[in-house]
This record gives sequence, structure tokens and C-alpha cells, in this order.
Amino acid sequence: MRAMVLRGTELTVEEIERPSPGPGQVLARVRASGICGSDLHYARFGAEMIAASRANDLAGSASVDLEAGVVMGHEFVAEVVEAGLGAEAFAPGTRVTSIPMIPDPTSARGAHTVGYSSRYPGAYGEYVLMSAPILLRVPDGVPDAVAATTEPCAVGLHAVREARVQAGERVLVMGAGPIGLMTLLWLKHDGVPLVTVSDPSAPRRALAERLGADLVVDPSTGDVAARVTETFGGPPEVIFECVGVPGTLQQAMELVVRRGRVIVVGVCMTEDRIRPMTGITKHVTLQFVLGYSAEEYAEALAAIAAGEVDPAPLVTRTVSLDELPAAFRALSNPHDCKVMLTFYDQ
Amino acid sequence: MRAMVLRGTELTVEEIERPSPGPGQVLARVRASGICGSDLHYARFGAEMIAASRANDLAGSASVDLEAGVVMGHEFVAEVVEAGLGAEAFAPGTRVTSIPMIPDPTSARGAHTVGYSSRYPGAYGEYVLMSAPILLRVPDGVPDAVAATTEPCAVGLHAVREARVQAGERVLVMGAGPIGLMTLLWLKHDGVPLVTVSDPSAPRRALAERLGADLVVDPSTGDVAARVTETFGGPPEVIFECVGVPGTLQQAMELVVRRGRVIVVGVCMTEDRIRPMTGITKHVTLQFVLGYSAEEYAEALAAIAAGEVDPAPLVTRTVSLDELPAAFRALSNPHDCKVMLTFYDQ
Repeated sequence: MRAMVLRGTELTVEEIERPSPGPGQVLARVRASGICGSDLHYARFGAEMIAASRANDLAGSASVDLEAGVVMGHEFVAEVVEAGLGAEAFAPGTRVTSIPMIPDPTSARGAHTVGYSSRYPGAYGEYVLMSAPILLRVPDGVPDAVAATTEPCAVGLHAVREARVQAGERVLVMGAGPIGLMTLLWLKHDGVPLVTVSDPSAPRRALAERLGADLVVDPSTGDVAARVTETFGGPPEVIFECVGVPGTLQQAMELVVRRGRVIVVGVCMTEDRIRPMTGITKHVTLQFVLGYSAEEYAEALAAIAAGEVDPAPLVTRTVSLDELPAAFRALSNPHDCKVMLTFYDQ
Repeated sequence: MRAMVLRGTELTVEEIERPSPGPGQVLARVRASGICGSDLHYARFGAEMIAASRANDLAGSASVDLEAGVVMGHEFVAEVVEAGLGAEAFAPGTRVTSIPMIPDPTSARGAHTVGYSSRYPGAYGEYVLMSAPILLRVPDGVPDAVAATTEPCAVGLHAVREARVQAGERVLVMGAGPIGLMTLLWLKHDGVPLVTVSDPSAPRRALAERLGADLVVDPSTGDVAARVTETFGGPPEVIFECVGVPGTLQQAMELVVRRGRVIVVGVCMTEDRIRPMTGITKHVTLQFVLGYSAEEYAEALAAIAAGEVDPAPLVTRTVSLDELPAAFRALSNPHDCKVMLTFYDQ
């Protein structure tokens, strides 16, 4: 099968062996697969990230051999092609998605992470293995490219649930990338009224407005806290930090109101510098969050299928497998939002 | 009157003008005045701290002229000598304490901080001005040196109240200086059962044990999380970071259990480095706290007077005004806990 292989920091589309489903697994043909910010980092800083996740004892890190090559891709929808023993409930042709895990009792942590494993190729290739016990059927009528946003949609859902925003609190979402916008969608789903989104990119701000932001601000030309105060009567009380680069934590502590909360959703891969005095004098709480539960993943898919949240506008471009390496390079300086790899005429 | 004056980074005992009480103020003769860790920092890094507090728009910072000289000292008990207009309810001889503030409508923020003001000398001198509306009478029977610990005692109370420790949670207090031990006292006052205290100093660990710590650990020779796990069945769930030097936030995030909370009580004056990935992958919450309310200050004094908390063992040494500059230098490498300046035979 064809797949984009990351070897060191090189990305090439090549022919690799198609995997075979073991007991309890299905082989599925990928229909759509989203480019995730983590994958962009991984393609540049994979070696450091593997070292860091080993230090933090994370699932899957032990199974990556970056020199041998890895096929990334963990936000996807696929179509069952062949069922392994015990997985026959999933007939060929069934559209499915799941949290990107393959339970495997032979691995140190009991599971591999699809897309960050040398053993289980991810969805930047034609076929993936999936684990039948955790498969979710994708309801008819949900386009492939939208169903494939279930994963980041679940990240936004998890962040919003963890934050427990109180009625009337002024909220700021820093960053209108896919995670910031998914956070916005869930805030609006939950009826949160005073939501500001800040992003230096004009197209992303326009997207945030279209998705229901009550105020959008360009942090490169305006004082974000002053704009929020002017519009809503005070600085933000809850900030979702959805950028994840060095410096944004300190910025968030400076922007938030006294006794405010910063929900750290962005994944900063490197060391960061903060001035604790800012947090101390303002009684700030920094709440780090990550990922989602299996239940939240299922809830995100159900909400998309029911039309309760609609991430379709986030998908600003689709690319083919051959175009994928160039799309990776282009996203390092992003104008797009979610870029989606698709395999068939959609 | 005689006082220890900080000028730049120089500490000298000299003769300065005795202040006169304005309307609503009393002149009080200092009986005991505790050395605070913040003052030790201030004596070394005062200029940087003033710049930082100005950047954070903190009360009082505008009134400090470090070159003209400042008398520090904000943890104290004093005896009324002379009452200004409207403050006659406080008869000479009355022992009093208060939060270290002087309301002053002519200042930018409406108040000066006693001990960090060029206008209102602090309690490292013979006399202070105090504001009658916020004065608390010190009940008879509470020794001066114990009453003078009300301020750090209120800091510990505030930290414990903000943390909302749940029944059965494993707690770690990092640092057995005055703030760590006051935190310990309030945890024990509130009936929290599984409290570990870590400190590299053997005398401080012994003090923590005497004050009710269920486990003490030397972080320089042992794996703190492993010791807590071995003794109480898991890593700490709530950590009170009471050290406040660069690196301890990252250490706390590494020590705490997944989904644990770090209450940041220690005041790190400088920039610090953290690895956000540690917090992210463990879903850690960092909760910065500072100071106390006027109600908490009063509650701390009442609890001391009632014998509900007993900070007396924290006072490990008393010094005279002439010995104070040397005590400042000695505390930079601390073996003592709370060192108390006293003026009279106690």
C-alpha cells in the first residue's frame, strides 16, 4: 500500500507492506485523515518528543523507531475491508472511526497509539488496522472529512468540560487553529455567551466569527485584555490557551483577570519560561488538560452526526497523498485551518 | 528612634525620625517583629522586586525609594503609645497587631504597605504607625513573639483554605520554613490525615515532625514521591509548594499524582522554567495563591489566642535590633526557622 513515511525529519510517499488484521482487529481503508498540529511538530522534532514522552512514561513511545520510519495520522475515518477473528460484526464497507489506540497486551503499556507507532501504521496511508472493541460506526450522512474531525472535536469537548465555565464568565480562546475553534464550538454548544477569540490570522478570525465568536481580536495589533474589557466589562475570567508555543502561558497569565483560570489546551513541546510573580500576585490557576476519554470521543461523534456541533467549516482544504508532504511544509506557517487528506472522490 | 534601614542592598542600624500619628492612626512601640523570607529577598533583590511589582501594579510599590532608604518589617506586635485624632479608643499600653497596611487616600492605590514604604517605616525599628480602623487587640497571655507570627500564620491559613483539600487526599508540603510549617499547622488544625513534609534541613524536618507531620522526607537523599507512595499508597494528590525558588514548580509537577494539584505558596521572585509537557500529560493544576484577607488575619490571631494552632515552636531564635543585620545575612543559608526581633525583655 502507499503511505507517507516519516524517517528522521524526512517525509516521503512510498510503497510499504499492507498490514493484516489479528484477532479482534479489522483492516480498514482510510477515507479521510486530518493533519494534526502534533504531527507537524513530530515531523520536525520527533526525536525530542520521543525522548520526552519516554521520560513521562507515555503509552506507545516505546514502539516508535524514527529511523526505521513511522506512518503518522490519528484523526481519521475509514471503511472496513477485512475483519480478523472475532471482529466479524463489522461487515466490509462499514464506515468507522475510533480513538487512535490498538490494545496490545504484548506492549509495555498495553496499547499502541495509532500514528505514533512503528508497528501500527497511521492514517497517512491507504490502510490501517483498528481494534473492533473500540470501533464506532460513522452514521450515514456525515461526510468523511467531517467525521474525520471527531478527534480534535473531542479535544475541544474535553477542554470545555474540564474548565467548568460558570454562567456569565468572560471567556477568551487564544488561537483559532483547529483546537481553538473546536473549543469555541463546544463553548457555543454549551450556551456560553461572552466568548472572544484571538488570532493573528485574518482568515482564522473570520472563521471564528462564522462559528459564533462574540468578539474576535488580532493580538498582533490590539491589546486583547483592553478589547475584552471594553466589550464585556472586564478582562477574561477563563482563558483557553490553544496555541502551545513558548511564551503563551505567560501571556495568558498577564491577560486573565485576578483570580482567573487559564486552561492549557495547547501542547507546548519545549521548555517554557514563566514569571511566577504574575500568577502569584493575581491568584491565577493554570489547569493543564490533554486529550479526551473514550466516552467524550463517542459524544463528539454523536454531536457531529446530530448537527449539534458542526466542524465542517474548519476543513479549509483537502489534499491527496501525493500532495501531503508539501501540505506539511506549508502548514508550518499556517493560513489554512484543518487540512484533510482524502483518498477517494468525496 | 533607632531602626534598621535598607539602602540599596546595605543594611545599617541608625537613628531616624520617629513618625507622628495622623488622624485615625496610632503610634505604637514595636515589641516583636518577625524576619520574613520576602524581606531577605528584598534586601538582596529589592530593585528588581520594585520594578516587578510596578509592572504588576501592586499596592505600595510606588512609595518605595530604595536609595533614600526603607525600614522593612511587616509581621509584628506593638504597644500603643499615642493615639491620633479619632483613634482614642486605643489606650496607651494596648497590645495590637494588624494587616500591614496603612489606608492613605493620597496614594495611588489608596494604601501603603507597612515595611515596603518609604513613608511608613516598618517594624524593624522602635516605632510604627498603625491604622486604627484595622487594629486588632492581642489577647493577654499570647507572648509577643507568638502574636507576631500572626501574619505568616494567616498566609498558611489562606493557602489551606484556597486548596480545599478533600477527605483522604495525600498531601505534600514542600519546604519546612515558616510558611511550610504554618501550612502544616492549618492542615492539622483542619484534620487532614496524610501529610508529608519535605525539607533538606534536619532541624526543620524535626520541627515538622513535632508539629504533626505524618511523614518527613529529605529530598536531597530520597525519592519523595516513592516515599509517599510507600507510606500512603500513592504519590501526593495535593502539593503545597512553599519553597519559591526557580525549579520547584517543575519538581512539584513531577512529584504530584496524575490529575493532582500544586498550590503555589512560595514566592519565586525571578523568572522560572517549566516543561509544560509534564503538566499536560498529567493533567496537573497549578494554583497560585498569595497573602490572606483581613478576616483570615483575624481568624489566625484568634486561633493562636485560643490555642487551636500553636506557632510558638517555629520561633527558634530571638535577636536584638543591633543583631538584626547579621541575622539577615545568616538566614540566607537557613538553619533556623522563624527568627524574631524583640525589643524588651519578654
